[in-house]
Amino acid sequence: MADRAAYIAIDWGTTNRRAYAMTREGAVLDSLHDERGVLALATDQYPAEIAALRERLGTYPVIAVGMVGSTRGWLEAPYIAAPATLESLADACAEAAPGVHIVPGVALRDGKRPDVMRGEEIQILGAIRAGTAPPTALFCQPGTHNKWIETVDGAITDFTTVMTGEVFALLRHHGVLAGMLDGPVADGAPFRRGLRRGIASHNVAASLFEVRAGVLLGWLAPDDAAAYASGILIGTDIGTREDLARRPVHVVGGGFLSALYAVAIREAGGMPVLVPDGSTTAGIHAIWSLRA
Amino acid sequence: MADRAAYIAIDWGTTNRRAYAMTREGAVLDSLHDERGVLALATDQYPAEIAALRERLGTYPVIAVGMVGSTRGWLEAPYIAAPATLESLADACAEAAPGVHIVPGVALRDGKRPDVMRGEEIQILGAIRAGTAPPTALFCQPGTHNKWIETVDGAITDFTTVMTGEVFALLRHHGVLAGMLDGPVADGAPFRRGLRRGIASHNVAASLFEVRAGVLLGWLAPDDAAAYASGILIGTDIGTREDLARRPVHVVGGGFLSALYAVAIREAGGMPVLVPDGSTTAGIHAIWSLRA
Repeated sequence: MADRAAYIAIDWGTTNRRAYAMTREGAVLDSLHDERGVLALATDQYPAEIAALRERLGTYPVIAVGMVGSTRGWLEAPYIAAPATLESLADACAEAAPGVHIVPGVALRDGKRPDVMRGEEIQILGAIRAGTAPPTALFCQPGTHNKWIETVDGAITDFTTVMTGEVFALLRHHGVLAGMLDGPVADGAPFRRGLRRGIASHNVAASLFEVRAGVLLGWLAPDDAAAYASGILIGTDIGTREDLARRPVHVVGGGFLSALYAVAIREAGGMPVLVPDGSTTAGIHAIWSLRA
Repeated sequence: MADRAAYIAIDWGTTNRRAYAMTREGAVLDSLHDERGVLALATDQYPAEIAALRERLGTYPVIAVGMVGSTRGWLEAPYIAAPATLESLADACAEAAPGVHIVPGVALRDGKRPDVMRGEEIQILGAIRAGTAPPTALFCQPGTHNKWIETVDGAITDFTTVMTGEVFALLRHHGVLAGMLDGPVADGAPFRRGLRRGIASHNVAASLFEVRAGVLLGWLAPDDAAAYASGILIGTDIGTREDLARRPVHVVGGGFLSALYAVAIREAGGMPVLVPDGSTTAGIHAIWSLRA
């Protein structure tokens, strides 16, 4: 019966959803990916969604992570406080329906600043559980919001959310830089030039105006503006971290944004180490095993 | 004939326009303010606009400043390089039509970063000419884009444009903080708390996410979020200037934003000095006198 599923794992985010039929050994037998994220669903639609997923993947228990457990999702699974481990997350799951459990997110509550995550914790702790990252490490998880996450002995102890990608998207579509940022964003001379500018500057709202002034004055080619602006934003994020020099930074995710962050981390003196995909199912499997 | 106008001064911006009937002594005899800024006008509409203004204010020569001289305006008056004085601006005016001159903007071209201004230079140099600010000074000119402007002996030598107000507006209307920033923005405990956070943080895209996390975790009252976010943005801007301690900073403009910047400058150890309104007409009058 090694080929039979034991449960369904769901990574249920804001705009996307990935569901996996999992064996009791943690192998993925089948999966699907669609855009039925929490923004596409009303609260009362979730039971039917689960029924449809079971129709497709089998009538199994469900473990779900991500924004499905937020106030905008199906059922709020209240944040647990850092330090957070797979064990403390497994203990705090919320039962949304018979056989359907939602893993909570993690919050910084008692420090001098507040922060929250929902979904990223599973990917990080899953990577540690899978052995693709060490238990005590600094992680960088690029996306619409970049997360810097510190772990000690397999517990998430501190983290910082940076709205880098969102600010880039806002500037690209609205305001005085709109129409200037539609060129390609990739590693290369304009990106590295922006990166060095961002690392040195610390005042991102000032450096970004240089994109406009630079194009107006012929100092920056219009086609280079998007990569330069991306470099400024990522460089500012990287440049304000004082703990990167000669330090391994475990960069999660295989997309182009992770590659750009790896370039940026190296530029700032750190040592980027790419964490392979597949960590989320490893993390959910650990939760399932702990609860089984 | 002291009560007769000698020329028309126009402060012609992106979304607004102010026109003044000026005496040869620089007094304002009459004025109008409307929303016929350059974004509301096509290039071929300007002659009729001038005719209508002359109908209202008298058939006089015209001196115009601001975005009317940009590539989006009537006729491009190419930027002059800093250091820029009223004399060098007067020498470089562009003639858009018989008796209608447009004052150029100022650019940083040869330094390590590019920057541009159009309109602000007249207000700053006008304040110096009117005696409401010293010839060698640091100016702060809040707005959608805050400008930091340095002058030496009545010449603009350096400046920095910071997109603080624009970033606040983008976040208020779009993205993950939209709907959280509709509360009041005024000086008070939440603004000062954000200000201290911004001055200390330098990573504005990270500090801004604290607004969302703070509201979710009950660390920040929803009504305080807008003032806190404004404090973070202004604090980050102020905090990255290393030259404020015990230094007079001449804050231009009488609005609530200038009052908030004055609070911020004081928080960072500087000495804000408010520059009264009226500087633009003083600057244009100096240009007219130099050209007469």
